Amino acid sequence: MPELCIHPLPEAVPPAALAGGVVVVIDLLRATTTIVHALGNGARAVVPAASVEEAHAVSLRWPAGERLLGGERHGVTIAGFDLDNSPFSYSAEQVRGKTIIFTTTNGTRALRWAQQAAEIRIAAFANLSAVCAGLRTESRPVHLLCAGTDFRLSAEDVLVAGAIAYQLRETFEQSVETRIYRDFWVTHGVSDASRLTTLRESAGGRNLVELGFDHDIERASQIDLYSIVPRLNPAGELI
Amino acid sequence: MPELCIHPLPEAVPPAALAGGVVVVIDLLRATTTIVHALGNGARAVVPAASVEEAHAVSLRWPAGERLLGGERHGVTIAGFDLDNSPFSYSAEQVRGKTIIFTTTNGTRALRWAQQAAEIRIAAFANLSAVCAGLRTESRPVHLLCAGTDFRLSAEDVLVAGAIAYQLRETFEQSVETRIYRDFWVTHGVSDASRLTTLRESAGGRNLVELGFDHDIERASQIDLYSIVPRLNPAGELI
Repeated sequence: MPELCIHPLPEAVPPAALAGGVVVVIDLLRATTTIVHALGNGARAVVPAASVEEAHAVSLRWPAGERLLGGERHGVTIAGFDLDNSPFSYSAEQVRGKTIIFTTTNGTRALRWAQQAAEIRIAAFANLSAVCAGLRTESRPVHLLCAGTDFRLSAEDVLVAGAIAYQLRETFEQSVETRIYRDFWVTHGVSDASRLTTLRESAGGRNLVELGFDHDIERASQIDLYSIVPRLNPAGELI
Repeated sequence: MPELCIHPLPEAVPPAALAGGVVVVIDLLRATTTIVHALGNGARAVVPAASVEEAHAVSLRWPAGERLLGGERHGVTIAGFDLDNSPFSYSAEQVRGKTIIFTTTNGTRALRWAQQAAEIRIAAFANLSAVCAGLRTESRPVHLLCAGTDFRLSAEDVLVAGAIAYQLRETFEQSVETRIYRDFWVTHGVSDASRLTTLRESAGGRNLVELGFDHDIERASQIDLYSIVPRLNPAGELI
């Protein structure tokens, strides 16, 4: 049986240890939830950029009518950008056929951390079952890489990771360290009410409540809104 | 209420965030268990050293008959050292009145990470109740800093941290992130049998089982063998 590991934040695993594996990046509040919404609603691709400057530079590859700049810094919209980091901003009317150049604080960092992986996928509660279905036949090692919040472990990401590990508990070897978060899912994530409470109390959730984005937390708690699994292609695009 | 935080490995917290707080360092298998044994059995002090070279240099401060060199690299005794990293090697006959210059892979790293703390203490199952009693009246923030194993989170350390957090659940604010490990203690640590199983399956435990140190794991699982709390003094000695 191949192994599935939860890394509760990027610093918990040396980047070289991800080489050859499938890395599933999780930044539930809100980067990976929003990426799933964008692609689920028909965006052509989401192109992660490490900085605001890089996002502007990269965006010039597409004509003005075909691109959108999206993301956040410290939870709020970036000056001169088209879209913030709320999943509600990525409706079909907004994003269909467009290329989204996207930069966020924690999510983009986790994507860079995983660059030695054989394959990078994106997970959130919004595409939970699709992610699990895609991993079920995987023979390579699987790494669930949680982005965390401002370099700290945050409960919302390990809750998603625990849900995936739980669904795949018969398919992959899992260490006792990984089972810690699987148990956390079972006790604090399975019921809709306790999942929402846990997300609101999490490090990422507390930030969003303060900023007035409670409806984004509620949206991020919803399971299986889409059946897609975003993957990073060799051109550096999530499709 | 002051806050108590579990950091599941040093990289999970920026060193500056520990400034002004009480940092409790946990490296159950085996550094902090062994330090508690050494001081509990009458050693004058344990002096942490970052490297083998530093340990030799520091040891010259004491006459040959009053000092002992102890520790490990990759689990085994260091050439030219007096003692390995097994708690059984630190008996009263061996250590009474002696200064132990001590270097290990993960434990020493965690101590260095905490150097901005207002106070550094040492915890293991061997001194669990004494550690909790000492923290009960604390008004400063408390950080339980888990050493991990080779830069990875390991279950044995967060299990001790969870036990401390659980005992102090009415005394300190605790985030949902900290409660993850408190729950882990409740489900996997409270009973003697499940605690021992969890330690054997942990990242640090698997290493020791391979090296034939199963009796050290058993010893490390035992609660309240001593009632001391080692503290780092301004001279850099644990006493």
